[in-house]
Amino acid sequence: MTSPTHPPSKTHRTFVRVRFGDTDPYGIVYFVSYFRYCHRAIEEFLRSCGLKPEETFKNVQEGFGLPIVEAWCRFRRPSRYGDILRVETSIQEMRSKAIIFRFEFYPEEGTELMAVGTANLLAIDATWRVRDLPERLKESLFQEK
Amino acid sequence: MTSPTHPPSKTHRTFVRVRFGDTDPYGIVYFVSYFRYCHRAIEEFLRSCGLKPEETFKNVQEGFGLPIVEAWCRFRRPSRYGDILRVETSIQEMRSKAIIFRFEFYPEEGTELMAVGTANLLAIDATWRVRDLPERLKESLFQEK
Amino acid sequence: MTSPTHPPSKTHRTFVRVRFGDTDPYGIVYFVSYFRYCHRAIEEFLRSCGLKPEETFKNVQEGFGLPIVEAWCRFRRPSRYGDILRVETSIQEMRSKAIIFRFEFYPEEGTELMAVGTANLLAIDATWRVRDLPERLKESLFQEK
Amino acid sequence: MTSPTHPPSKTHRTFVRVRFGDTDPYGIVYFVSYFRYCHRAIEEFLRSCGLKPEETFKNVQEGFGLPIVEAWCRFRRPSRYGDILRVETSIQEMRSKAIIFRFEFYPEEGTELMAVGTANLLAIDATWRVRDLPERLKESLFQEK
Repeated sequence: MTSPTHPPSKTHRTFVRVRFGDTDPYGIVYFVSYFRYCHRAIEEFLRSCGLKPEETFKNVQEGFGLPIVEAWCRFRRPSRYGDILRVETSIQEMRSKAIIFRFEFYPEEGTELMAVGTANLLAIDATWRVRDLPERLKESLFQEK
Repeated sequence: MTSPTHPPSKTHRTFVRVRFGDTDPYGIVYFVSYFRYCHRAIEEFLRSCGLKPEETFKNVQEGFGLPIVEAWCRFRRPSRYGDILRVETSIQEMRSKAIIFRFEFYPEEGTELMAVGTANLLAIDATWRVRDLPERLKESLFQEK
Repeated sequence: MTSPTHPPSKTHRTFVRVRFGDTDPYGIVYFVSYFRYCHRAIEEFLRSCGLKPEETFKNVQEGFGLPIVEAWCRFRRPSRYGDILRVETSIQEMRSKAIIFRFEFYPEEGTELMAVGTANLLAIDATWRVRDLPERLKESLFQEK
Repeated sequence: MTSPTHPPSKTHRTFVRVRFGDTDPYGIVYFVSYFRYCHRAIEEFLRSCGLKPEETFKNVQEGFGLPIVEAWCRFRRPSRYGDILRVETSIQEMRSKAIIFRFEFYPEEGTELMAVGTANLLAIDATWRVRDLPERLKESLFQEK
């Protein structure tokens, strides 16, 4: 459940091109590549909130990290080398210590769902112990920059 | 549920070394790499059953393919560059048209669960329509070669 | 030497973002990632000439392929996670049966050479024998689309 | 030229399996994958000398790093998904501040050269300035452990 103190998540849109090394031997996107696309979508989501990924996934100064502790994808339709995919990224759930991102993959200009996935990021401190998400971070994630 | 006509799955053991390009910028295994390790574990599971992966994921002659249609992993403890992981692979569920593999990652000689995941393979025909798993395949998967 | 029948190559500019999985365990771009960036730069060069990469690297209908038979890179300065690199791509040499692309990597808005490389593509026929580059291809490569 | 104070390099042999994600959309090994195999071959070469790669590519305590500053490969024959390649790794040249590794790729049990490459590692200090290779390292590289 989305935390009641936060408004519904915006949906951020980014595009990924299926590259030469992203496919399996049969020319279909290798399922592993989708998880790389998901990470890239998180990076772009963060940037759209004014957050630098390189200071967000691990922030030594503020003493927190945000490792991905769970990831899931369902692949509904095959994509091929050269395709452009539209990724719609949103925050599916915001907890006190975790963020769950949701990804929907569509053709560049189509509405047919190609793949859907989630990634759970957990807030940890410098000793890898679970901690609360930094307030600054939570606020930024619901802002448009 | 495991199909009643099949014995419980064997557990196949393989080892993966965390390579230079498998980590994130902080020296921790990039979550995407685990999905590559899962695929590799399926390949080795197939080989241990006498099945060639290159004739199993797609078999033009017999008119079937086995795309991965869903994948999931939970990452419990970080691994680092140079580590060796022991992957315990089994068939979690065998359906008429699908196979679900399960992966458990441990330290080379330890018992602490580092990560756990699943991958669902669906049987399709040459036109990408769902079909029954080939009998030959189902039988082989429960054999030791 | 550039073939005398062709004008000097244009220089095509594209940008690549250093992604999470592109670095080594120390946060520096893994040298292998540069070769991926080179391939991507060729793809964008082809598109800027009106050529679809997916019909150019292998073209069953016209009976040719363009495998990369040699690649080289020198890495002069380290790039880091989150950096944007500007890639300047040109045709260093056009032979009757081969194309040599040249890549120069700079900071997004800087002039300091970060890395430089080349990739040799050889024209082959359906049986993997060396053949002349298709005329259509050679002409397109010196056009702006 | 090999430094006169060192004996000729041993040749270390390792094997790599072409994995699902290592190919291009046409089922042929993506040229970028060969560079990954080269890095893996260096790792195994180091281990065969009693050197831990994770303490050799970067060693904070002893104040040195060994980044790859140049890499080159020629691809002579295509490999395919499922193939096993035999990599013969040797030190082509040992300089006061650099090591050049040489890689030859063969079929698992064949003698036909599939690909050949080199990688240059340069010794740097903690401030990225070029320095002499540590004596301990140079000695280890010519030992069998």
